[in-house]
Amino acid sequence: MTQSLNLLQTAAFLQGAEDILILTHANPDGDTLGSGFALLRGLRSMAKRVRLFCPDEIPPKFSFMADGIKYADYEPKTIIAVDLADAKLLAHAQADFPIIHLCIDHHGAGKPYAENAFVDPTAAAAAELIYDLLREINAPITPSIADCLYTGISTDTGCFRYSNTTARTLRIAAKLMEYGARAAELNRRYFETKRKTYFSLERMALENLHVHERGRYAVTALTRAMYDECGASEDEAEQIAAIPRQVEGVLVGATLKEKKSGGFKVSLRSYAPVDASAIARRLGGGGHARAAGCTIDTPLLEDAQATLLAAVKDELGALECKAG
Amino acid sequence: MTQSLNLLQTAAFLQGAEDILILTHANPDGDTLGSGFALLRGLRSMAKRVRLFCPDEIPPKFSFMADGIKYADYEPKTIIAVDLADAKLLAHAQADFPIIHLCIDHHGAGKPYAENAFVDPTAAAAAELIYDLLREINAPITPSIADCLYTGISTDTGCFRYSNTTARTLRIAAKLMEYGARAAELNRRYFETKRKTYFSLERMALENLHVHERGRYAVTALTRAMYDECGASEDEAEQIAAIPRQVEGVLVGATLKEKKSGGFKVSLRSYAPVDASAIARRLGGGGHARAAGCTIDTPLLEDAQATLLAAVKDELGALECKAG
Repeated sequence: MTQSLNLLQTAAFLQGAEDILILTHANPDGDTLGSGFALLRGLRSMAKRVRLFCPDEIPPKFSFMADGIKYADYEPKTIIAVDLADAKLLAHAQADFPIIHLCIDHHGAGKPYAENAFVDPTAAAAAELIYDLLREINAPITPSIADCLYTGISTDTGCFRYSNTTARTLRIAAKLMEYGARAAELNRRYFETKRKTYFSLERMALENLHVHERGRYAVTALTRAMYDECGASEDEAEQIAAIPRQVEGVLVGATLKEKKSGGFKVSLRSYAPVDASAIARRLGGGGHARAAGCTIDTPLLEDAQATLLAAVKDELGALECKAG
Repeated sequence: MTQSLNLLQTAAFLQGAEDILILTHANPDGDTLGSGFALLRGLRSMAKRVRLFCPDEIPPKFSFMADGIKYADYEPKTIIAVDLADAKLLAHAQADFPIIHLCIDHHGAGKPYAENAFVDPTAAAAAELIYDLLREINAPITPSIADCLYTGISTDTGCFRYSNTTARTLRIAAKLMEYGARAAELNRRYFETKRKTYFSLERMALENLHVHERGRYAVTALTRAMYDECGASEDEAEQIAAIPRQVEGVLVGATLKEKKSGGFKVSLRSYAPVDASAIARRLGGGGHARAAGCTIDTPLLEDAQATLLAAVKDELGALECKAG
């Protein structure tokens, strides 16, 4: 049974906590790492022992967040998860943490897993909540904490571009710049820098970009042969997934990514009124309304594309019926 | 002789102005149009007669700013230029306006041309200054004014991504969202929507993308044949110009665009310590430190590329000497 806490209760919880272990989700992004390291640095400034555990390796562009942090060896008394919508997002490490004392998150859905939870789905990023908490417990917002929190906010909002961005988001970012966040330098790293191999992969993705359903559906595909030819890594394919939806007039964009093990991972992006998660569910997947995913386990790209197209047709058709 | 005004003096000037004509620069962008139409709507709410003149056609994505505006016919008594760094940026219309009574701008350089000038180079966009002025004269910030001002700020900062973004920029944007700016919808239009023809042009640009000078210089080219093949327009090439600098490690990015009349327009983008305008000046062009341009009038792409590479080599070499 999860106890839900408000800001003040969560601040009190943090002030009382000792020998803390912070957990981030697997396949870590800027928000889970920015929130985790900002919380770690803030709590350490209050003379607490704090460690952070990330189930996967930290991507090089975020590794600066851990600079200068040494981990003392102790048995954690308080385990806090940040930006972790569901315990299964701890992946291989889930079994290692049967008890999580506090969850700090901005995701609405997800199965409750912690003894206590401070969840605010109106926050664009978990980093917004960490900012409020650090202010509440009077932890100094150092330049390095500001960098971590700014990273969480800018990466989760596409640099304030997406609909989750609120006036509050912009005001917190303004404060973080005043606290010393290197906004321009961080944004350049996150949004304006790509490997040469990425551009080769994008060129191939654009060669495979096709528009169907009277301009409402765009799809592209990345095959193992393409990865091999340009030497790009699969994580570089993440950015490709945004492209099909960017075609003017498109309501659903899809990217098929051939798995090493065969079959295809499908990334879906949509604009209202199309629900990407509804399309994903038709194929045994799931996700959010604007971003969802599924897997199609057929060896041939043509078959996978046909299966996906059928599901998209069904969903667009169902919408038209609703619209009458 | 230009009289420079502060915020209060400019507000007083606006309150006393009658029968106003607002000028934007040619080849209009989101800031000159957003500033112009916001000022027009604000001054009209104070029962003044105001018209706006743009030397070129307003791009479709910005045309909503003019919705519902009708122009009365009168002889302008007060001519105000917004976001106009230099009178020659009125292009073909420059001769029509020998007298400009007030300039409101955020560009530092540029030859003074107006009788009075309110210039603040610390502002990320002229729209920041228009916001301050409208607040100062107590003009109501309507949702449509908020849309115009938000457009000016988001388009001039790459959606808060670039180094001109300040805490003040973010706070004004927060206010504009509260005043009803449709931030997510506008950002989707400006940053997340591209024509299919653009993607074809980008694919060709990526095919031509090459990196030189031990990874510090990246260059691509767009030929007339490419425009013809994909049916893209030259204004779609603007976004291409950002790509070469995005290659990891690159300090200078260049895009050669073949002109209808023959020869090539060159767009240069750089990161510190490389000064793009210094490279442009070596070829008779100019611009800003991070973004500059020039023209190379040789019919053959190979020759133009060689000329440009030589100028880049010279500039990088000069830098290394300075660095010792």
